[in-house]
Amino acid sequence: MRATVIYGPKDVRVEEVPDAAVQKPTDAVVRNVLACICGSDLWAYRGVAKREPGQRIGHEFLGVVEEVGADVTSVTVGDLVVAPFVWSDGTCEFCAEGLQTSCPHGGFWGSVGSDGGQGEAVRVPYADGTLVKLPKDARSDERLLTAMLALSDVMATGHHAALAAGARPGAPVAAVGDGAVGLCDVLAAKRLGAERIIALGRHEARTAIARRFGATDIVPQRGEEAVAAVRELTKGVGAHAVLEAVGTEESMRTAISVTRDGGSVGYVGVPHGGSAGVDIHQMFDRNVALRGGVAPARAYIPELLKDVLAGVIDPSPVFDMSVGLEGVPGGYAAMDDRTALKVRVTF
Amino acid sequence: MRATVIYGPKDVRVEEVPDAAVQKPTDAVVRNVLACICGSDLWAYRGVAKREPGQRIGHEFLGVVEEVGADVTSVTVGDLVVAPFVWSDGTCEFCAEGLQTSCPHGGFWGSVGSDGGQGEAVRVPYADGTLVKLPKDARSDERLLTAMLALSDVMATGHHAALAAGARPGAPVAAVGDGAVGLCDVLAAKRLGAERIIALGRHEARTAIARRFGATDIVPQRGEEAVAAVRELTKGVGAHAVLEAVGTEESMRTAISVTRDGGSVGYVGVPHGGSAGVDIHQMFDRNVALRGGVAPARAYIPELLKDVLAGVIDPSPVFDMSVGLEGVPGGYAAMDDRTALKVRVTF
Repeated sequence: MRATVIYGPKDVRVEEVPDAAVQKPTDAVVRNVLACICGSDLWAYRGVAKREPGQRIGHEFLGVVEEVGADVTSVTVGDLVVAPFVWSDGTCEFCAEGLQTSCPHGGFWGSVGSDGGQGEAVRVPYADGTLVKLPKDARSDERLLTAMLALSDVMATGHHAALAAGARPGAPVAAVGDGAVGLCDVLAAKRLGAERIIALGRHEARTAIARRFGATDIVPQRGEEAVAAVRELTKGVGAHAVLEAVGTEESMRTAISVTRDGGSVGYVGVPHGGSAGVDIHQMFDRNVALRGGVAPARAYIPELLKDVLAGVIDPSPVFDMSVGLEGVPGGYAAMDDRTALKVRVTF
Repeated sequence: MRATVIYGPKDVRVEEVPDAAVQKPTDAVVRNVLACICGSDLWAYRGVAKREPGQRIGHEFLGVVEEVGADVTSVTVGDLVVAPFVWSDGTCEFCAEGLQTSCPHGGFWGSVGSDGGQGEAVRVPYADGTLVKLPKDARSDERLLTAMLALSDVMATGHHAALAAGARPGAPVAAVGDGAVGLCDVLAAKRLGAERIIALGRHEARTAIARRFGATDIVPQRGEEAVAAVRELTKGVGAHAVLEAVGTEESMRTAISVTRDGGSVGYVGVPHGGSAGVDIHQMFDRNVALRGGVAPARAYIPELLKDVLAGVIDPSPVFDMSVGLEGVPGGYAAMDDRTALKVRVTF
């Protein structure tokens, strides 16, 4: 089969690899219908996150079950399924409590020896613990399929940020970052009942989506100016719930600074750089909490899926470019130079 | 009157100062019965936290109301009262939600122009928002008075850490630090229902109090060895609720490292040093939350007082040395060289 392989900075290729196949009785093979490129893939693409030359890449995919191992009971051949961005066994204490990202048998797509999401098919370990079945009749609805693809990572991650920050009715929200996760932060906060949502971002095409997703105010400034602007919008005190979706020291510093005393930063941006942006003195003096991390998408997909199917949320607008599998390298380049927000891969 | 004044590193003196007096209609004057020295006073004593030469010092006191301003309604002359370690107006949105430490009219005892707690009497701004009345008949019960004195800071701070960390039945707890707050962390976690409480500390006199307060296990190691020891005691996963009461980079690193995935660090140690101990990568990968800060003692005193009066908790054993007011400089020296755990000042 063909799949995306990363060899080094700015060097991703689509090439022939061994066919995905069931290796253990708990495996399934999914033939992809849709996949996509994540902002976090760019850290590997740019050489910031290290990869072995020849590793697969991609961790968001949706497709049809093509083969199942003997022990798989929750899905069967022909089922339409979506995968969260980590696999998990579904039986350990962490899976039981909804923190599948800490499953001791879990792992990331594209890690050494595993298939990545940006390929024709994927071997899925622990299929019962990992895959979520989708309605088969959704197959013909491209917009709906695209919205469901977002559940594999960005929408689930936005939801994690919103939960961690304590987004709720009556609590002003600020969302730092206008990438796909930052936009999903807004949608997730809105879904949890926040009425006032301040989106920090300066790219007009993106802030337009933020408004569509529920943002009531846009703050294009950065750094100290952004902090002043958010405070001005919140009677001088800052936002109760702040969602951080970037992961740089600067964005973390901004997130903490715009949080109201006693409020929380829900952070889901993969941290790049050290802890210097975590201003512990400011957090201490003002009782600002820091919560979040890698989102247990598997825990959230069922409830988010209900709302996608009911038309309550539609994260599909975060995809603004589509490529076929052979176009994946071009998709990376487009996201890298920010001409694309998020690239969908069709098969 | 006589009060403690700080002039520089290792230079605290007891000297004549202007008598405490009502200056505003919302003030009260409290004549002290008991006061004490805090571990956080040592940061000023050691010159790490800067003070203007001539500033008062001390922020924990309990005494009798001697004079009230015209607008004071909640306490009257002759009432026995305890003060939290910050004053607050009692009427703002932060006070209303129990975050009195963020009151815009609040302040710290001993800040420039205000009385400190280690003196014969104290002018209390916003007496209605600040002071908590105690039963008058407690006056004759020295142990009870001492236990109530602990509510002004260390017991309330331990409770804040326990709440922030999510101490509760069924969740193993680890308490980092064996100072007075670290010991109160243990007592607070026990009070909230934790059955398994691991205290990290190596001073036997202190760990003996930890055991008395509810610690089930003592870990005398530090750094990586402490992390290994706590993990061994918790089936390899760490403690759900970790209370940090030291404030150094090393203790924060230890606290985060011994926290179970998905758990929380409740930190109340005044941060000294930067954010380097806040390992954001580890926190992200394992969804470890960081919550806490300066404790809104005023919010907690009423409920903790009930339990002190009912004999449910007794934090008085954290005091292991008593001095009169003239002995305060010697008390600082004893705490500085760790021959005393916490020094009580009697009047």
